[in-house]
Amino acid sequence: MKIRLLSFLALLSAYTVTAQDSLTFRKISNEIMMHSTCYENLRVLCKTVGNRISGSPAAAKAVEWGNKAMKEAGPDRVWLQPADVPYWYRGKESLYLTLDGGAYQKVTMTSLGNSEGTGGKVINAPVIMVRDFDEFNALPESAVRGKVVFFNYRFRQDFIFTFNGYGDAVKYRGGSPSAAAKKGAVAVIIRSMSTGEDDFPHTGGTHYKDSIKKIPAMALGNKTADKLEAACKSGKRIMAKLSSECHMMPDMVRSYNVIGEIKGTEHPERIITVGGHLDSWDIGEGAQDDGAGCVQSIEIIRAFKALGLKPKCTIRAVLFMNEENGQKGGQAYADSAKSKNEHHILAIETDAGGFSPRGIGFEMGQAQKDQILKFKDLWQPYGILDFSHDEGGSDIDPMRTKLGVPLAGLLPDCQRYFDIHHTGNDIFENVNHRELKLGAVVLAQLIWTVSEQGLN
Amino acid sequence: MKIRLLSFLALLSAYTVTAQDSLTFRKISNEIMMHSTCYENLRVLCKTVGNRISGSPAAAKAVEWGNKAMKEAGPDRVWLQPADVPYWYRGKESLYLTLDGGAYQKVTMTSLGNSEGTGGKVINAPVIMVRDFDEFNALPESAVRGKVVFFNYRFRQDFIFTFNGYGDAVKYRGGSPSAAAKKGAVAVIIRSMSTGEDDFPHTGGTHYKDSIKKIPAMALGNKTADKLEAACKSGKRIMAKLSSECHMMPDMVRSYNVIGEIKGTEHPERIITVGGHLDSWDIGEGAQDDGAGCVQSIEIIRAFKALGLKPKCTIRAVLFMNEENGQKGGQAYADSAKSKNEHHILAIETDAGGFSPRGIGFEMGQAQKDQILKFKDLWQPYGILDFSHDEGGSDIDPMRTKLGVPLAGLLPDCQRYFDIHHTGNDIFENVNHRELKLGAVVLAQLIWTVSEQGLN
Repeated sequence: MKIRLLSFLALLSAYTVTAQDSLTFRKISNEIMMHSTCYENLRVLCKTVGNRISGSPAAAKAVEWGNKAMKEAGPDRVWLQPADVPYWYRGKESLYLTLDGGAYQKVTMTSLGNSEGTGGKVINAPVIMVRDFDEFNALPESAVRGKVVFFNYRFRQDFIFTFNGYGDAVKYRGGSPSAAAKKGAVAVIIRSMSTGEDDFPHTGGTHYKDSIKKIPAMALGNKTADKLEAACKSGKRIMAKLSSECHMMPDMVRSYNVIGEIKGTEHPERIITVGGHLDSWDIGEGAQDDGAGCVQSIEIIRAFKALGLKPKCTIRAVLFMNEENGQKGGQAYADSAKSKNEHHILAIETDAGGFSPRGIGFEMGQAQKDQILKFKDLWQPYGILDFSHDEGGSDIDPMRTKLGVPLAGLLPDCQRYFDIHHTGNDIFENVNHRELKLGAVVLAQLIWTVSEQGLN
Repeated sequence: MKIRLLSFLALLSAYTVTAQDSLTFRKISNEIMMHSTCYENLRVLCKTVGNRISGSPAAAKAVEWGNKAMKEAGPDRVWLQPADVPYWYRGKESLYLTLDGGAYQKVTMTSLGNSEGTGGKVINAPVIMVRDFDEFNALPESAVRGKVVFFNYRFRQDFIFTFNGYGDAVKYRGGSPSAAAKKGAVAVIIRSMSTGEDDFPHTGGTHYKDSIKKIPAMALGNKTADKLEAACKSGKRIMAKLSSECHMMPDMVRSYNVIGEIKGTEHPERIITVGGHLDSWDIGEGAQDDGAGCVQSIEIIRAFKALGLKPKCTIRAVLFMNEENGQKGGQAYADSAKSKNEHHILAIETDAGGFSPRGIGFEMGQAQKDQILKFKDLWQPYGILDFSHDEGGSDIDPMRTKLGVPLAGLLPDCQRYFDIHHTGNDIFENVNHRELKLGAVVLAQLIWTVSEQGLN
């Protein structure tokens, strides 16, 4: 009987969505679509800081920018949270191929992030091409030893949700150097994880297995990869000549997450986090990945303050450091939350680009999801119709694993992302101002719903 | 009893969506996402023909291009359907403003389509600014006579569905010249119908009322409009000096719709039409508006042929001529259908850009809509979740008004469209290959569903 009464009370206290919520959604949208500073913030980040790999002087400058931009948004408190991060340095790099079987031609390329270089030497060796790991695994060691292995795996354009295509292809970026080195290869070239019909090479983190020699790893854009594929198929002996100064710096570098907070009025101890990552790879401007997520997170604070919306729960916007090659910022945030015994009710990540938002993904129990989805119909006018994806994010994942916090992620349209992700073409000009702002609208609405009703 | 039996039979004959339909959806998608020629077709149209206003030599070249591209797609039959179209000619045009109250500065502008010019003269007159028609209507004639009226109405960024913002603002493009001329104004300048945070001026059709003097009408991009607004607000007397050779040519020009057809296997007399428009305004490359719709329509034919899909009904891909300033192609198509007593079961338009598709709009009865929506769940994996809009299109609208044909329209994401619509920035580079192809996928799937089950 007691249990029944409690269930009954729980039902009574359940939040009911009202017309007022719909009006608040509209208020948030109007404020951001008409008065947002996020697009201008992104311009400043991209054009005055530029790319900002963890540990670099540019990353330090980005922290300063973030600190200033966050303060301008007007939260109750801004602070820097320390995180020690790796610093991978690219330096000079080059790749020459005998694409027609004759003279060496310099080609456009990028070393994979975390790659080791050639240690001041030039590697000069024949190229062998494999379509995938199956083909590679079938090769005898004698066919691989002393060679440069070209992993010519294509990003599958038949996946409509391009993150599935990325998930399928990215194992070649992470796994091919150690796989090749194990059989005695001297370097690896991969076809980029790219949907692009262009020649931008894509960097992104590779990983070496501890006991295996760290050989250089480079990526080609699709057009150059097509040429190398044709050359290899011609039957001629194709040679590569490559050098690179890439290396991981010996010491970790002190860096920071930038955090802005609005204190909750009714439940200040309940915390809702939203964040993107401040670091980027060291080419392009880190505009979609993930300057967009940073300025959207800051924008939520600005919009709440501008509207005089006083959330019941505490809201934190976090610019995480070191998502790309270490996730040290995300770990530091979760570790701090754990050591302080903080009560986080939801963590949200925006790291899939500032494209037109289409949905919200969840990594939480169905009961929690159902509480948020009470507001589903209110999102219809904003084009937010897709709640079918499981979605968290690498920076907030430690909050889930270490503290069991429910996660959510903004789900923007994904068709263009892997054209520009991790390339020199990830620049401010490739972000649309309305798409960027609309993402911030949806994040702010999501935070409002959870702050109002809680999440149990 | 007889009636009941008929109802029962109707139920029995009602189409049931099967796993085979889901497989066909996937086949269509894989074929187009991996082997489509539509992106390359668009490149050729944009880069070798370029913009192509109705009646111009470029439009004639576009018909040749369309005829060739349609034939290459492999339909059973290709033909050109005559339509006599107006030919509006821009020629030289210029606008100088005393933006700081002193010297004249040349500004970036575009005359509105169909605008008359200055007849070899230079108009030199003071500028008065109004926010909207309400403010304009309140002005006495004496305040307007001899002036250049600047209609400074802003595209409302608070509309999430940007076509609503366009619908709200476009009356200034169509209606301001005659409204201003009626009170004795000598020319009109408008703020472009633009969501852009840039300075691209947008052309697009204006309309003169018959009995009223046709005065020149020009549009400014948002940045220049901001400057003129600030100048007008400064209280200084702002002067404009403008000239333009714009005029409508005296004679109509013989032009054509390009039509490709696959004959239906079971119901060849039932016709499904899909089309975009081949003409464009005379600036930019008409890439999103509406090269995209043309190459998508052609792609449907190519994909059906490549897959060996034999539709039960006849499918026609139509490249309509003269959507932008006359709709003569759309009218000719409907007139021909009517005179031949053709049985059209559905007409579909794709003229909202080649952006990531999000839904399908309908202009048909609920019972018909319900038949198509049987396939709703099959579209989920393709991100097609929005069936809430009423959507037809100007080229197919005569099919509805003259023959009562049900209409549908592809609904792509609309956030970027009014940044580039009718501008010099509507170029091939601003179309994404995956987004373009995905639109063709959805159109082909829609046609397949209707061809399989009919539409009663």
